[in-house]
Amino acid sequence: MKKLSIVVHSGFGHTLYAAGKVCEGVKNKGIDCSLVDLAQDKVDFDLLQQSQTLIFGSPTYMGNVSSVFKKFMEETSGIWQKSLWLNKLAAGFTVSSSPSGDKLATIQTMMVFAMQHAMIWAGYHRHNESLIGVKADEARNFLGSFCGLMLQASSTSPEKSFSPGDLHSAVDFGERIAELTHNITL
Amino acid sequence: MKKLSIVVHSGFGHTLYAAGKVCEGVKNKGIDCSLVDLAQDKVDFDLLQQSQTLIFGSPTYMGNVSSVFKKFMEETSGIWQKSLWLNKLAAGFTVSSSPSGDKLATIQTMMVFAMQHAMIWAGYHRHNESLIGVKADEARNFLGSFCGLMLQASSTSPEKSFSPGDLHSAVDFGERIAELTHNITL
Amino acid sequence: MKKLSIVVHSGFGHTLYAAGKVCEGVKNKGIDCSLVDLAQDKVDFDLLQQSQTLIFGSPTYMGNVSSVFKKFMEETSGIWQKSLWLNKLAAGFTVSSSPSGDKLATIQTMMVFAMQHAMIWAGYHRHNESLIGVKADEARNFLGSFCGLMLQASSTSPEKSFSPGDLHSAVDFGERIAELTHNITL
Amino acid sequence: MKKLSIVVHSGFGHTLYAAGKVCEGVKNKGIDCSLVDLAQDKVDFDLLQQSQTLIFGSPTYMGNVSSVFKKFMEETSGIWQKSLWLNKLAAGFTVSSSPSGDKLATIQTMMVFAMQHAMIWAGYHRHNESLIGVKADEARNFLGSFCGLMLQASSTSPEKSFSPGDLHSAVDFGERIAELTHNITL
Repeated sequence: MKKLSIVVHSGFGHTLYAAGKVCEGVKNKGIDCSLVDLAQDKVDFDLLQQSQTLIFGSPTYMGNVSSVFKKFMEETSGIWQKSLWLNKLAAGFTVSSSPSGDKLATIQTMMVFAMQHAMIWAGYHRHNESLIGVKADEARNFLGSFCGLMLQASSTSPEKSFSPGDLHSAVDFGERIAELTHNITL
Repeated sequence: MKKLSIVVHSGFGHTLYAAGKVCEGVKNKGIDCSLVDLAQDKVDFDLLQQSQTLIFGSPTYMGNVSSVFKKFMEETSGIWQKSLWLNKLAAGFTVSSSPSGDKLATIQTMMVFAMQHAMIWAGYHRHNESLIGVKADEARNFLGSFCGLMLQASSTSPEKSFSPGDLHSAVDFGERIAELTHNITL
Repeated sequence: MKKLSIVVHSGFGHTLYAAGKVCEGVKNKGIDCSLVDLAQDKVDFDLLQQSQTLIFGSPTYMGNVSSVFKKFMEETSGIWQKSLWLNKLAAGFTVSSSPSGDKLATIQTMMVFAMQHAMIWAGYHRHNESLIGVKADEARNFLGSFCGLMLQASSTSPEKSFSPGDLHSAVDFGERIAELTHNITL
Repeated sequence: MKKLSIVVHSGFGHTLYAAGKVCEGVKNKGIDCSLVDLAQDKVDFDLLQQSQTLIFGSPTYMGNVSSVFKKFMEETSGIWQKSLWLNKLAAGFTVSSSPSGDKLATIQTMMVFAMQHAMIWAGYHRHNESLIGVKADEARNFLGSFCGLMLQASSTSPEKSFSPGDLHSAVDFGERIAELTHNITL
């Protein structure tokens, strides 16, 4: 069975909650999914090595990935040196409180990171459904992001802070990356 | 009297309409404002040279500035060679149909362009007012952009396609850039 | 036999020359390779549709892809609408006269474009060989780029304007993308 | 007397050494210059508040600012909330071991950060002197960067790891930002 790991940092639980939904989508398609929570866990790099696919998740803080996530990135420099993640599949998502909020900068940091590791990058394939008639808060990819998944969260508790459409997007994104894991990872 | 020029391309009139609102804000603060419409006009480079400040406006098409706007960028290579825009103030805005829609990539293209010309870049200073209680469609900087102004337009006629908050943002952004033109341009 | 097309714009022949070297690498690995020269050809979108992989090439002009390349990007909006390039493999390269010269901005424009089309992105996997003892002008990936291939060209004729290492990089990059075309395209 | 502070992180001393050269340039033009070393000092935010201009410096690690620098960015969120850095001048520089090495991504992270604080951004104005006949290792802006200063360092000791041209660039860049501090800061 192919494996996928989601490496996620979450300051207040919102990004972790979103990661759970992405994971749900991954499992829906029959791929084994592990959540690696950077706030809790010492990173199990063996697990990441055994995974065909890595999904990166971080809040957008002051216009980019969190410093905790950035620290994880730097801890992979030995892996980079040996090209141990060569040709693994990678994808990413981020959460912030505004619709745009410079989230693209966060996703692009993850993309450059994945490219340094010579991974293959996949984004979110769904067109913004609110432009074809779906209600704003039920639309998948309402924010209109393609490089990765972008979600907007209010400052209430994680379970109440996302629109139904954004949660649906997270599952949908997980399903896409799982299907690609079946079909294109080596 | 100090001068400011807005160099704008608009495919269907929405970005041009937004440029008009930015221009209104500039004039509110007593700065002379010219609209240079790339779809209509041969660019008057003398006018741009006489301007202390240039604001760039383009729709976001397929994830970046329009090809018409890019062509304008390339027509300035002689100006770049001679550093004729050294230390002018620059700012930028973009319009697309989704909240995010990769608009940051468009603004960043304008920023790199301005930096190649050794201009000074100013963004949009307003925090997203919807996060402090203003109704979503009346909030300034609802999309949450700082590098420049981001607006969202539906596919109806330009006059009807922006939220009141987005139009207010455009005026507000023009006022900020005009005040900086008073205070910091050489 | 799987097909790969290189869509390239070149203002003075340097980027086209580099495209030829990338193509050589692709063919070395037994993949059919077509050059689509935007300065010469009406784009054969049927050919692109039949290709499992697209490589994009553009000079970096004023900090981003050329306007001719950007125009090509916009001509694909109907393809985007129908998601016709879903899950094709994509990669990109760029040429400019300075080592850095904002070439990353050009590659990132191509990446965002590919993501809008829901393609899968692969970069250049080679570590900078000059850091492990290879002579500067013979080293592959001397500039140190991972998101795509970056090359530096002087203003002499294309055949004389690249270092041997850069030409070697172009072949090497083509070989990598061809191998991925064999192994991961659907 | 106007004040300028350089907020810098350095893992192995190279970026700190470069910061010293930038500082030398700043002082050459009669501006008071303080180095805030994130590896050593608790950040004196009062000093930053009293400074008309902030220059940011970070190595490029795994394709972006260091996690230590990112942590500093996040420590300014209260300052951001109150817009305390509104209209200060900002600039940035980075160091890595390859000519390109994704340094633009680092500078762009600093630019987005400065824009979130509604600062004004200035880059490096010098054209690559190696393209007009200066010897490669003596040329200012040899790497060809405009958004900020990019330097290349080998892995030897900081004093020996930069080309004379790169050190000259650092002084030159400091002088430019100091002159702008005289002329445009409020």
